Amino acid sequence: MPDSRDNPWTTLEAEVKYDNPWIRVVEHQVLTPKKAPGIYGTVHFKHLATGVIPIDAEGQTYLVGQYRFALGAYSWEIPEGGGTASETPLESVQRELLEETGLTAAGWQELLRLHLSNSVCDEAGICYVAWDLSAGQSCPEDVEQLVIRRLPFREAVAMVWAGEITDAMSVAAIQRLELMLRRGVAPAAVAGAVGALE
Amino acid sequence: MPDSRDNPWTTLEAEVKYDNPWIRVVEHQVLTPKKAPGIYGTVHFKHLATGVIPIDAEGQTYLVGQYRFALGAYSWEIPEGGGTASETPLESVQRELLEETGLTAAGWQELLRLHLSNSVCDEAGICYVAWDLSAGQSCPEDVEQLVIRRLPFREAVAMVWAGEITDAMSVAAIQRLELMLRRGVAPAAVAGAVGALE
Repeated sequence: MPDSRDNPWTTLEAEVKYDNPWIRVVEHQVLTPKKAPGIYGTVHFKHLATGVIPIDAEGQTYLVGQYRFALGAYSWEIPEGGGTASETPLESVQRELLEETGLTAAGWQELLRLHLSNSVCDEAGICYVAWDLSAGQSCPEDVEQLVIRRLPFREAVAMVWAGEITDAMSVAAIQRLELMLRRGVAPAAVAGAVGALE
Repeated sequence: MPDSRDNPWTTLEAEVKYDNPWIRVVEHQVLTPKKAPGIYGTVHFKHLATGVIPIDAEGQTYLVGQYRFALGAYSWEIPEGGGTASETPLESVQRELLEETGLTAAGWQELLRLHLSNSVCDEAGICYVAWDLSAGQSCPEDVEQLVIRRLPFREAVAMVWAGEITDAMSVAAIQRLELMLRRGVAPAAVAGAVGALE
C-alpha cells in the first residue's frame, strides 16, 4: 500500500528548456495525482541561498540595499549570497558577509532553513545570526551595486513590521531572531547587545 | 544625477526561453551595474501567492500536507494558492481556503507581504489570518492530493521552531502571528482562542 507521503505524480518525460550557471528550467510531461495528463515546469537552483544577521557589540545590524533585477525594484535585505558546491553553507555565508560588508564574525548560530518558492522552484535557504564582529575591507562582486546601512537591530525589526523589508529570507530570519529575543533563547552576546525590545 | 535606487542594469536584449500558464522564463543580455556584459535569466510568476492561517474558536489551525513536485519532498504548509487576475488577493485566498479545507471565515486580517525568491523570480506573496470559521465541503483541485491536519496553533508554532515546516510563506506567516500574540496586537478573537503561549 502506498505511503500517503510518497510522490503521487508520474513523470512521463522531462525536457530541459533553459539552463544557465544559476538555474535549470525543466518541463515535465506528467500524470497528476488524479492520473490526469498535464505539464509541470520546474526551476532548479544550482546554489544554496544563505543569509546572516550580523549583530555588533552596540546591538546594530547591517542591511544591504540593492536593485533586484528579477523583481524590478529596490530591496533592503540581510546580507545574502549563493553557496557553491565547494563550500559548506557556513563558509558560503561567511564569504558573502565579508564581500558585502567587510565584516568577519567569531560567533555564529543557525537560525532557520527555508524552501523559498516550492510551487515551482527547489531553492533552499539557510539563515544565521553572527556576533563578535571585526571590521575589514569589503569587496563586492562585479555584478553588485550595494548600499550598506548600519542600524539598530530593533529598527530592522520595525522595517519588517512596516513592510519595508519584503525579501522572504530576511523577513523570516529577522522574525526568528526577534522571537528568540522575546523568548529569552537568543545567544547571550546578541541579547545583551540588542537589549530589551519594546 | 542618477538616484542610487534607480535600476543600475542595462538590458540589451530579452528572449523568452520558456512559457507555460504559470511562469515565463526570459534570458536578458545585460550590462551589469559595473558595465560588464553578462546574462540574467529571470522567472516571471503569473499568479500571486496567497496563504492563510485559519484559527477556530478552540485555537486550532489547519495545515495542508502535500508532495511538492518541484521540491521532490513532502511539505506541511498553511493553506496556500495562486491568485488570478480576475480576483483580489483576499478573494483568491478565500477560494483556496474553501477548496482545500472546506472552511469559510468571517474575520480576516492581512499579516504580511513577501517577495519569495528575488534573485531570480518576481513571485510575490500575501498572507492572512482568518477567524470566525464555518465548516463546509472541501473540493481540492484535480492536481492536488492533500492531507488536512487540524492542530493547536501552538503546535504549528512548534513545528516551525523544530524545522518541520520549511515553506517560506508558512514560516513567515506563523512567525508573524506568534509575534503578534506575544506583542499583544493579534485580533482579539484569535488571541482569545489561542490563549497564552509558553
